[in-house]
Parts: sequence; C-alpha cells; structure tokens
Amino acid sequence: MLELKSFFKPKSIAIFGASTNPNKSGYKLLQNIINHNYKGKLYPINPKGGKILGLNLYKSINEIVDPIELAILYVPSTKAVQVLKECIQKGVKAAIIEAAGFGEVEVGKKLKNEIREITDNFKKIRILGPNCTGITFVEQDGEGLFTSFIPMGKTKAGSLAIVSQSGFINGAYYPYFTSNNPNLGVRYVITIGNKMDINENDILEYLINDSKVATIGMYVESFQDVRRFIKLCREARDKYDKKIILLRSGFSPIGSKATNSHTGALAERSELIKAVITQSHCILADDFWDLFNLARTLSFMKDTKIKPITQPSAAVITISGAAGAIMADWSYKYGVEIPILDSETYNKLAELYPPWMPPASHALIDYWPAVEHAKGDYQKILLKCIDIALSSSRIQAIFVAAYHNATAWKVDWYKLRDIIDKHKKPIFLWLFGEKSEILEAEKIFQEIQIPLFTSEREIVSTFSKIVDFHNSRSSSK
Amino acid sequence: MLELKSFFKPKSIAIFGASTNPNKSGYKLLQNIINHNYKGKLYPINPKGGKILGLNLYKSINEIVDPIELAILYVPSTKAVQVLKECIQKGVKAAIIEAAGFGEVEVGKKLKNEIREITDNFKKIRILGPNCTGITFVEQDGEGLFTSFIPMGKTKAGSLAIVSQSGFINGAYYPYFTSNNPNLGVRYVITIGNKMDINENDILEYLINDSKVATIGMYVESFQDVRRFIKLCREARDKYDKKIILLRSGFSPIGSKATNSHTGALAERSELIKAVITQSHCILADDFWDLFNLARTLSFMKDTKIKPITQPSAAVITISGAAGAIMADWSYKYGVEIPILDSETYNKLAELYPPWMPPASHALIDYWPAVEHAKGDYQKILLKCIDIALSSSRIQAIFVAAYHNATAWKVDWYKLRDIIDKHKKPIFLWLFGEKSEILEAEKIFQEIQIPLFTSEREIVSTFSKIVDFHNSRSSSK
Repeated sequence: MLELKSFFKPKSIAIFGASTNPNKSGYKLLQNIINHNYKGKLYPINPKGGKILGLNLYKSINEIVDPIELAILYVPSTKAVQVLKECIQKGVKAAIIEAAGFGEVEVGKKLKNEIREITDNFKKIRILGPNCTGITFVEQDGEGLFTSFIPMGKTKAGSLAIVSQSGFINGAYYPYFTSNNPNLGVRYVITIGNKMDINENDILEYLINDSKVATIGMYVESFQDVRRFIKLCREARDKYDKKIILLRSGFSPIGSKATNSHTGALAERSELIKAVITQSHCILADDFWDLFNLARTLSFMKDTKIKPITQPSAAVITISGAAGAIMADWSYKYGVEIPILDSETYNKLAELYPPWMPPASHALIDYWPAVEHAKGDYQKILLKCIDIALSSSRIQAIFVAAYHNATAWKVDWYKLRDIIDKHKKPIFLWLFGEKSEILEAEKIFQEIQIPLFTSEREIVSTFSKIVDFHNSRSSSK
Repeated sequence: MLELKSFFKPKSIAIFGASTNPNKSGYKLLQNIINHNYKGKLYPINPKGGKILGLNLYKSINEIVDPIELAILYVPSTKAVQVLKECIQKGVKAAIIEAAGFGEVEVGKKLKNEIREITDNFKKIRILGPNCTGITFVEQDGEGLFTSFIPMGKTKAGSLAIVSQSGFINGAYYPYFTSNNPNLGVRYVITIGNKMDINENDILEYLINDSKVATIGMYVESFQDVRRFIKLCREARDKYDKKIILLRSGFSPIGSKATNSHTGALAERSELIKAVITQSHCILADDFWDLFNLARTLSFMKDTKIKPITQPSAAVITISGAAGAIMADWSYKYGVEIPILDSETYNKLAELYPPWMPPASHALIDYWPAVEHAKGDYQKILLKCIDIALSSSRIQAIFVAAYHNATAWKVDWYKLRDIIDKHKKPIFLWLFGEKSEILEAEKIFQEIQIPLFTSEREIVSTFSKIVDFHNSRSSSK
C-alpha cells in the first residue's frame, strides 16, 4: 500500500507562490491552513520576500534550515520543474501541484515528461495533482489540513471521504453541501486533478485502510486501471464494510471531451464505463447533489446503527393521498415493493381509523382519516402510524410525506428520533410547509440527524440505490 | 362553456360546519376567507348558534334573509344530502363539498346517487368536490377567495393556475412551493376531489378562457373523458398559447389503488395513460416538486418575454469542469445539443482566455482559466461569457454552474438580469456556496426573477421538457 501520510500529516510544509495580497489565491491558501489550526511548521515562499499572516516569507527553499515534509506548489506550470528539482534536493517527500496547464496542451505533456524524469518516475517525490486543490483532512472538528485556495469555513469531523478529479469540490461543492447538512461529518476531501503520479486507486486503497472512513464518494473522469478499481471496490464492500458512491462523468461525446480538456485524461468508451460500474457494485450518483444526498443518507443509517437492507420493501406513510400515489408509482418504477400489511399491523392501524374509511390493505398509509378520527391530534397519529409500520417485519423502511406547521400542527420531532432508534429502520422524509418554518425545522432535524428530502422521486431513488448496493453484496459474496 | 363564476366570485357565501373552536377546521376555513379580504357577504352556519370571528352564527340557512350564491359544506358526508336540499330550496347556485367519505366506500356511492337525484343530475346546483379543499382564487396580491381549511399566508397574484385532485395542494404544497418561490404569482388553485359533478376538463376549459392564465399545472388521478382532455390541451397550446404541466399518478398497481381509495375514481391502464399524455402534448412532471419547478421556469420565461424554444441546443457555462462534463452527459441523455461554437463566438471568448488554455471548440465554456487570466476578476468573466454565449444564434439557452461567495467572489447579479433582458434567452442556473450566503442570494434572484436550480440533472431535465413541449407545438400544428 502506498504511504501517503506525508500528504495528510506533514510535520512541515513549504508553500511556493504564497502571496502577501489578500485577494490572491496564494494568500488564501496559506490562510486556510492557518485558520484550520495546522499544528506543524509553515514556510511560505516567495522570491519577493516580506511578511505574510505573521510569518516570514522565504525567498527560496534553500533559505529554510529545517527539513520540509510537504511542498504545495501554487506557481505557474512553467516553474514547476525548477521548484520540484529544489524540493528533491531538499529531501521533500510529497508535493501538491495546484496549478493547471499540464494535461491540457502540448506544452503540458512536455512538462509532465520532464517531471517524470527528474523525479525518477515519482520515486524521489510523490506528487498529487497537478490541476487540483489538494487536500482537506479533518482530524477533529474544524481542525486538520486544508490546502484549498478557496476560503473555507469550519467543518465537522466524520466518516465520509471524498476523492475527486474536480478541484472545485474542495472549497465550493463541499462547503455547499456540508452547510446544507451540518451534521455530515467529513474526514477527507482529496482532489487528484490530472493524477500525474497518485491516482484514484492509490487514494481508494489508502481510504479503505483507514478505519475511521465509512463512506467514500468518488468523482472520476477517467479510470486509471479498471481491474484494480473493481478489485478495490469489492474489497471495500466485502472485507471492510465500506460504501463507495461513484459519480462518473464523460459518458457522452461532449462530456468526455470536457473531461479531456479538463484533466487531460483519455476517456474510455461509454460501454466500458458501464461495465466497470456494474462490476464494481458502487452506488452510482446522478450528479453532485445526488452524491452528497447518498452520502448523508448512508451517514444517517450508520449513526442510527441501521443494518444493511437487502429487501426492497417500504411503507408509504403520507398525509396526502397524492404524494402516496406518486411515491407508489416511483416505487414500482424502481422495483421497490409496497407490501400487503400483515394482519397484526393492519389491525393496529385500523384502531386509529374511522369505520367509514379503514386503512388500505397495502402498506400505503394515508393517515389523514386517522387524524380526523383523532379530532386533529396530528402528532399522535403520525408517530403511531410510523411506529406501527416499522414494527412490521415486512417493512424495511418508510417513505413519509408530512406537513409541517409548527403552530397549527405541532409535532415534537425528537420523539420521531426515539421511534427510529427503537426499530433501527430508516425513514425517508419529505417535510413540506412554509419555507421559514421548514428552515426552523431543519435545525431540529440536524440535531436528531435525520435527513430531509425534497421530492417523491428523490426519496424512492435514494432508497432504491442503497438497497441495490446492499443486495449486490449479498448476492456476489 | 361551463359557467363557474359563482365558485370564484360569489356575492355571498354560506359556510356549513363553521366552528367557534379555533383548533377546528370549520373555524380555520372561515378565518382563511376573512384573512384574505373576501369582499362579499359571509354567513357561517352551525346549529349551536353563537358568534365567530365577529360574525353571527346562523342555526340554519333558512334564517338567512339575503340570497346565497355559494355554499361551502364542512359537514360529515352523512349530512350532505340534507344540507344540499336546503341549498337548492334557497336557490344557492354552487356548492363546495370539502368532506371525504363519498367515493371511498359503498355508503359513499349511495350518497352520490342520492345527490345526483336531488340535484336533477347537478342541474339545480353545481358541485365541486367532495373530498377537496375548494378554491384559491387570487384576484390581486393576498386578496381573493381562499376556502381551504389549512391556514394560509398571503400570496402573490399571477398567471399560474393549478387544478388538482389532491386537496392538500390548497394549503400545504402550494404555500410550500410559493414560499420557496415568492415571485411565482398564482391566480387559481382549484381542487376537484372526487369530481362528483365538475371535473378536470370543466375547470381546464374555464382556465383556458381566462386571459390572465398563462400556465396550468394539473394533478390528476384519473381522466374523466380522455378525448375532451386531449382536445382541450391542444386547444390551450395552439389557440391560446397556454402551457399545461401534467402530474398524473396511478401508473403502478399500488399507486392506482391508492388513487382509487383516495378519490374513488377508476384508474385507467398504464398504456392508456401514456397514450393520452403523448397525444395531449402536456409537459409531464415527475412529482410535485417538478410540477412547481416547471411552473416557475415557465413563469420566468414569460415574464422575461422569452420566445418559445424549439431547438434543443444550449451552452454550458461553468466554473467547474466537472459540473460541465456532468451537464454535457445529461444533455446527451436528454437529447440536448451542445453545439460547436461559430467562429465569431469562439474568437470573442478566446480573447478572455490565456494562450495556454484556449476555450473549447464546443459550447462547453469552463470559465475558470479566463478568471485566472483576468487576475481573478470573477464577475467580469462570468458575465462576459454569458453575454457572448447568448449572442450566438446557435445557442438557445445556457446552463450555468456558478460559485457564489459574496465577499471573495462578489457578483452584482442585477447585471445578469440585464444580460438576460438583452438576449431574451433563458438561463438555468445552479448557484452553489455556503448555505447562509445562498439564502441571501436567493432574495436577489427573487427580485430579478431568475429561478435557481439545485443540480445538474434538474437543469437539463427542465430545459429538455420545455423544448419538447414547444417542439410538439410546431410539429403538430
């Protein structure tokens, strides 16, 4: 296994291209490192010299007496060879090259060959990038190593790791999705860019062996070695019980062209990509939204100690017959069964319903008549229906469409968390109501760590993808 | 054409089942009517008598001296026949029956037959419902008729009309989506429930003839008369230039069962439903989220005076090569072309790019290198790229993935509106960044009336559905 420790826990870092101008990325990069309480020694380098963020700027790496473990290069690609030569001479173990301009054009290819030569095929120094934003490594809440040049806020430590050929995830997508899901703890966001040396498989292998990582989200524009990728994915799933969510772009002629120009990789043919995905049994994401949506759902299931679900059967619990019918339609399309209720479950439900409108025979529970029957006791009926449904062995999960109105239809959502903890089965909840009220409710749901969904399709699609993953495991083992 | 004016602009309303208990729906219903500044006369009726919200409660309709135009029945289904008899005697023209318990069970069918008989097949009084929440009719901002028993806030008047077999839209889905899109002006939300008398076609015909309605969203669980529905949809499109968005549930065995129990309609076979949808050339929504998503996009296009788009060609403008590749992939799947740039457009773009990283030959514009080349002038490059792309006759719309950071990467979004107004072509924008900043930005986007999307797939899917609709028009005319 590749030793990557120097990238994540370096004792000292030299930053080439550090800038005293707060508007420049070479300044923001250093600021990110300092703001996130990096514990080692920092050596910003700029030929102009001066001071930056309370640190002396070194004119060259030769001025530094102490050893350097990691170098971050925020310099034009044309200067990279010279800087790397100096780093090798200094004994630097690892380098992150954040600049672009390597894989995109002819001159970049020439540079790449030069670097391969001076590093003795990357034996003398390991390289992450180029064309990346390096690493986010969250050792503990808000602390660790943050090498992106896009300003980043504090983040929560957790069990999610992201590997991405897009540098934009580190500083843009990632803060976007984590600020929308503040409970989604992250351990790594690693951008591999053009992967001149270190590729997605190297990182994957490293992450599989980190016991603190539970879920790995990958954005990949090209596979370096498909056999190794498939092997690693299966190992992650079968041996280490880790989930891999894959977002693979470049299926289309233009999309593949885009990734070519973007990171200089040769895109494989669409059929090959599909075969790799099938064999690797990853959870396939539709786009970045879906990638994080799946990640937060898996995180919720892990934190709630929910066991793998291999049976695609769910109950639909809804205050709106319409939402119920639409979720049932999507369930049909995605192969999710809405089972017939066993008699015990049916009888328990029937007690809540008025005689003129008994519950349905299938697990499509429209609880509105029961609310009317209970003289408007919305909370009691909603929670009872959920509790009764989850008690049934035929039901593995629940899809819920619930109306939220904190004054007229108040529900103590903490009680929902208790019910989930009791049954250890997942809830996929669409909560609708006035925006201001939903934003308030979101805070409670972040506390009780239950993710909220925004549409019927999204609920069924997410559940279906997770069950398919668990099923692939049980069937191929 | 059916005269429905008594439902929307009644001079007087009698409310059967009005309650003095503020927790009861019979109270909230009246409160909604009063809060929204209904201008006619209100007669709450309850055999107990008393006072409610400053009005006298009548013990029966016979106590009322003045004529009554509309009756709202919030009484148990078993009392409906008697109340309707009294209404007919009084000369009431229209009745909204909000109670359920009609189509669901045998006893309901019996009631329905009785009502058909006493009303002389609905000649003596027209009926909306049962099992509905009546009508929202927004004559002007926050004013009109609101007959739902779910508390509702103020709403903006506009050109969207919703017809729904789900009563929950009126008071729950609708406030949810309009509070998320405060600029989405609405004219009608009409719930038809079990459609004992008035059905979706009657309402559709009425709406087509209202010149203030531009877009009609329909949630339908069963078609009453498919030939008439197809005819009306085509007429709406070809003769009146109105758009119809259709959400049809009941495609699946359980989904169809759900709608049966819900509104008592016989669901057609899935193949028939599909044929109707194809022939009616509606825009098909995936779920309620999608229905409102399509509605707000059409509303934006109308307000911006954007002409119908029949050519499915778009430019992808992105700061993230990854988002670009994913949007290109989805474009390919949905049949949207990312055209080759004409030389004029290419040359104008090339001026913004550094020599080491020229723009792509196709309309997949990754503007990051140009931002770097402009020494980080993010606003200038983003707006210029959009302006240049929209100038090209090959490009009908733009898909944009933009990073929002109000301090580090400030953009004056009002200028974006100017560019859209200049070209009269639509933008489908995914804006990502810290949640708090996005919530702030949303306010500006509401002001400039540009909708925001949340994922790559959603952007391409929405555009593709709208183009397909415009195309169906030009090809079938």
